[in-house]
Amino acid sequence: MITLSSDFGSPYPAAMKGVILDRCDARLVDVAHDFPRQDVRSSAFWLREVLPYFPPAVHLVVVDPGVGTDRNAIVIRAGGHAIVAPDNGVAIPVARELAGADEFEVFRIDVTDPESSTFHGRDVFAPAAAEVYEAGIGQFHARATFEKMADYEEITFPEPRVIGQETRGEVLVVDDFGNVISNIPGEFLQVDFGETIEVNGMETPVRKTYATLEPGEPLVTVGSHGYVEFAVNQGSGDEAFGLEVGDEICLY
Amino acid sequence: MITLSSDFGSPYPAAMKGVILDRCDARLVDVAHDFPRQDVRSSAFWLREVLPYFPPAVHLVVVDPGVGTDRNAIVIRAGGHAIVAPDNGVAIPVARELAGADEFEVFRIDVTDPESSTFHGRDVFAPAAAEVYEAGIGQFHARATFEKMADYEEITFPEPRVIGQETRGEVLVVDDFGNVISNIPGEFLQVDFGETIEVNGMETPVRKTYATLEPGEPLVTVGSHGYVEFAVNQGSGDEAFGLEVGDEICLY
Amino acid sequence: MITLSSDFGSPYPAAMKGVILDRCDARLVDVAHDFPRQDVRSSAFWLREVLPYFPPAVHLVVVDPGVGTDRNAIVIRAGGHAIVAPDNGVAIPVARELAGADEFEVFRIDVTDPESSTFHGRDVFAPAAAEVYEAGIGQFHARATFEKMADYEEITFPEPRVIGQETRGEVLVVDDFGNVISNIPGEFLQVDFGETIEVNGMETPVRKTYATLEPGEPLVTVGSHGYVEFAVNQGSGDEAFGLEVGDEICLY
Repeated sequence: MITLSSDFGSPYPAAMKGVILDRCDARLVDVAHDFPRQDVRSSAFWLREVLPYFPPAVHLVVVDPGVGTDRNAIVIRAGGHAIVAPDNGVAIPVARELAGADEFEVFRIDVTDPESSTFHGRDVFAPAAAEVYEAGIGQFHARATFEKMADYEEITFPEPRVIGQETRGEVLVVDDFGNVISNIPGEFLQVDFGETIEVNGMETPVRKTYATLEPGEPLVTVGSHGYVEFAVNQGSGDEAFGLEVGDEICLY
Repeated sequence: MITLSSDFGSPYPAAMKGVILDRCDARLVDVAHDFPRQDVRSSAFWLREVLPYFPPAVHLVVVDPGVGTDRNAIVIRAGGHAIVAPDNGVAIPVARELAGADEFEVFRIDVTDPESSTFHGRDVFAPAAAEVYEAGIGQFHARATFEKMADYEEITFPEPRVIGQETRGEVLVVDDFGNVISNIPGEFLQVDFGETIEVNGMETPVRKTYATLEPGEPLVTVGSHGYVEFAVNQGSGDEAFGLEVGDEICLY
Repeated sequence: MITLSSDFGSPYPAAMKGVILDRCDARLVDVAHDFPRQDVRSSAFWLREVLPYFPPAVHLVVVDPGVGTDRNAIVIRAGGHAIVAPDNGVAIPVARELAGADEFEVFRIDVTDPESSTFHGRDVFAPAAAEVYEAGIGQFHARATFEKMADYEEITFPEPRVIGQETRGEVLVVDDFGNVISNIPGEFLQVDFGETIEVNGMETPVRKTYATLEPGEPLVTVGSHGYVEFAVNQGSGDEAFGLEVGDEICLY
């Protein structure tokens, strides 16, 4: 199985699928092709939240603002999975999650003379994903195309801070429903479901699920990712709370 | 085969796919993940129009404004198909269509302690769809997970009324082309193709197909669903007629 | 394998998939369903850029402003591929590309009494694609459903003109990134990467790739299609250059 994730929109992902299917008969599964454009951190968040639900697979990931520069193309082997991606950190958080207590390994892809300087998804990463799939996740590193490397780009998510009764965090992403997802783990919530909390000064009910409130009412909840979220029952949390990616959040 | 339908946008459907593929090797087919958000009736319309074209399959349907409440999760067996969905009526119109002259059966899914209160697509419905697929559409009900139930939520579509030369109906959905689809069956049209009819007072040509008019011209036609539609050749019917979902239509 | 391309948005493509899977067990691969609506030329461009990356396959293509009129439905056999499409020229540029030095052949589909006048994707083209797939790309023409024909609709792309140091071209499409793709082949660029060129009077750097400039800076590059493109590093070329499909471009 090869999964595909990118910020390409349409129809560029289809060219990657053609390239892969011309080289192997892997089952293809789209994860998403509308990751926030050239936003490596948001994409890294979504990959970490979604890919661990898959059985061991090759994951092709292309969010690549540095396409055509000398940034490396890499394959990460982690927990039975292989992730093919640019070396910009986008795949590191999910690699840590997949590897768990184990280490993950990073391999540089030997790239020679790609057809284009602007579409390495098609010309570099898709062929590499097919080669990893064909060789096998346990064996691909024996091929000359892949060379183990020690240095790679990292990205990390900001840590929340707890200062007495106050918890300070940051908006990591806003999902398609308009739910605002923070970096504050649910365990950090200092009030119980059914109570209220101040969100940047706005007194807000804390609820286990949306439909305990009337449509249109804002709430604080712990989302499916395990993080504190700011939402509106059948509405858009980002509008109600006036929050976007990177904004600071103060819970009191 | 397992089909997937939701109002989740992206990338949440991929988590459901991961969960399913981690449990079984079903072929997955996306129906749509952009059903009008938390709009049970519109989603029910689209399911009824699309799913009957599929061969017998497991259909995973998640449009679920009541997620995390005590609403049931159900499986409906109808005409060789199985539909896994929340018990909010979304799957009833298509179940009737698939069952035809036969009865359909409804089974409650025994849900114990899902990982989240906000993403039962991933934590409840996807695992249930995989279990139904693995057990077989004819056999799954023998498992303890599924218990036959008699009471379930229904939704119905409004009926059109004919009063002499006047036909009154309602807008059911607007499609991606901007075609306005009503609840008035094509047989109720009291004029022939080539003639005109008054739509809420606006004299409009009735045509069998779009391209018999110039680009930009509004028309009344009988769409691929068999219902009277209000459209514009190479344009948007909803804009031209000023109609949206739930609006009343009077044909004269 | 059957690929699917259309301007249908959602969920109409799922009805086509149901029809196909009810008739055969082909692997289905979505190319795109958001081609510019009823825009035959832009769709023809994208098909020519994407389909040649696939191994031999049946390609179902429905961009069909003339649906329900007496325009023909056709199958084109080219270079081991078969393309099922309306006879409006949409599939001709890719057929030429796939055929290469060989000729391509065009067959009329015998269409009898489709269920609808407005959704031939479901009622005519999807069944024909399944029939071609079942019969085989090399054999389908032996069936009575398909009749060889000599006359078919063509579309062509405008040719660029070089007048001394000036090159005049046209915007063919704008992609999802906002990159403006012209009909001017990269070889026609009369300056080297690293230099500048006037685009409709605006002095602009010419670069091999985006990230050699600061985010937000406009550039001229040669895109993955081999054509001159007008882009912005991590931004939208169409906005920065004020260009849309069909606009004239003068490079000096």
